[in-house]
Amino acid sequence: MRERADVREVGPRDGIQMVKTILSAEQKLAWCRAQAAAGMRHIEVTSFVPPHVVAQFADAAEVARGALAIPGLKPAVLVPNLKGAQRAFDIGVPKVNYVLSASEAHNLANVRRTTDESIADFRRIVAERDARGLKGRVQISAGLATSFGCTIQGTVPESRVVEIAGFMAEAGAEEISLADTVGYGNPGQVRRLFDAVARVAGAIPLAAHFHDTRGLGIANVTAAVEAGVRRFDASLAGLGGCPFAPGATGNINTEDCVFLLESLGFETGIDIEKLIAVRADVETWLPGERFFGMVARAGLPKTFHHAAAA
Amino acid sequence: MRERADVREVGPRDGIQMVKTILSAEQKLAWCRAQAAAGMRHIEVTSFVPPHVVAQFADAAEVARGALAIPGLKPAVLVPNLKGAQRAFDIGVPKVNYVLSASEAHNLANVRRTTDESIADFRRIVAERDARGLKGRVQISAGLATSFGCTIQGTVPESRVVEIAGFMAEAGAEEISLADTVGYGNPGQVRRLFDAVARVAGAIPLAAHFHDTRGLGIANVTAAVEAGVRRFDASLAGLGGCPFAPGATGNINTEDCVFLLESLGFETGIDIEKLIAVRADVETWLPGERFFGMVARAGLPKTFHHAAAA
Repeated sequence: MRERADVREVGPRDGIQMVKTILSAEQKLAWCRAQAAAGMRHIEVTSFVPPHVVAQFADAAEVARGALAIPGLKPAVLVPNLKGAQRAFDIGVPKVNYVLSASEAHNLANVRRTTDESIADFRRIVAERDARGLKGRVQISAGLATSFGCTIQGTVPESRVVEIAGFMAEAGAEEISLADTVGYGNPGQVRRLFDAVARVAGAIPLAAHFHDTRGLGIANVTAAVEAGVRRFDASLAGLGGCPFAPGATGNINTEDCVFLLESLGFETGIDIEKLIAVRADVETWLPGERFFGMVARAGLPKTFHHAAAA
Repeated sequence: MRERADVREVGPRDGIQMVKTILSAEQKLAWCRAQAAAGMRHIEVTSFVPPHVVAQFADAAEVARGALAIPGLKPAVLVPNLKGAQRAFDIGVPKVNYVLSASEAHNLANVRRTTDESIADFRRIVAERDARGLKGRVQISAGLATSFGCTIQGTVPESRVVEIAGFMAEAGAEEISLADTVGYGNPGQVRRLFDAVARVAGAIPLAAHFHDTRGLGIANVTAAVEAGVRRFDASLAGLGGCPFAPGATGNINTEDCVFLLESLGFETGIDIEKLIAVRADVETWLPGERFFGMVARAGLPKTFHHAAAA
């Protein structure tokens, strides 16, 4: 039995929030269905930001409802505030990913609130979920954007990231995700910060959300694996970016991330060949976008099945 | 004082052996001069393969001679056999990189000899160097191509790689380089194989030559660093490939590799901004080639100098 590692697709959320083409709800759901059929159990299917902020997510409710019907899939949605969480609770989405920024400057730019205000909002979200009797049925994750540095503010003190993680743990987070929103992190820093956050998180599982903006994304996954992390966000073809983080192009790409984890001996449950076929379809829907990722170009090694079985 | 790590440019050799454009000797030397000015001390400047095999290297002697005159640079040349080594000795190149393949099938395709015949040839090269009184003045490195797997043969047993490394150590190699010629390696395998080879290499320094064919190149550098390796081959913009290894596109790119090592706290002596400027020049000489690498796209993080000083 190989140990499990989860790769969670964020393409239909992080991947498309800056692309030129608005996909239809049906395309987004076809994408989710195809990845679920490739073995992907966790997809962040949409974002409950205010519709006037990101036009791509005007159909968030429709996509979230549709995703609930996909066999084998546990859809998640991103929420930036209590109002977004309420919309998710109304629909019955089983996982709600709340995101705030460890960088004060980034949080102000992104959601026009201080980080402390966002922490307070997280407490209200957990209280609302519990008041609705959804505890145990709706999982709430706390994502700390810009945990490894910020294009606006520069350095984000590790002590501040650990402090915020502690607040979120106390507030009832059922997962803590550290995000390198702008691709500033390196493997040494990743190892150090996850080790430090693990000490305040206790039994709460940690997740990693890396961008490959400066080429270290997959190396950072390796470092997080060594720190005990087994949950990784990734985006098909490395699509993605953040509208409030200049130059922050590209999540780590799902195909290479799955290839890495399987090569390291983990079981992801994901069929890379099928993933590459989904990528080819999505590519036809997003003309003019840059598709990253090397395994999709080169194909799997002849030796791959040996590695996976090792 | 930060610990030193060496990134060695192989673009003028590995990087251009499959490109469509034949660069002039003057362009190759301008490239080397520019990278030396950016702080690169080690460049594999050309290959002494038979001129009819790779037209790009018909000017090998001229390039090697020219490189000897570049201030601050210790040029190296690749040699596939005794005849190539003799040409390098004649010119007075201070470092000769001999390469054979750990994969029997790849060695036969590449140099039409068995691996054992290539090992015997290495002994003749060392003997010839010593007979010419060049010991101590000309360093000989032994590179083991396809150490992490082969597109022709598939799996290359780790025991065989260790055995060949042992033969090369006994034969007088002053450096042993493990090459992932076709981009099959993963960080777990890299760690394991370098640890095993270090045991037979003793005091002989190890080097890593990775390709990023399947996206794990920079993660593999991180793993090799953890195994104690401090010498890394890389190619500007990730240019490169192997004519006898189908699909083996792209060395790890120099810019991201230097960025990784500096971010991890090592001193490479290389100015990444200058490197990116060299890349821009080389790009104008190689129309139609695909230039890889993320730091050149995104720029250095605001936090970079902090990281480098840490």
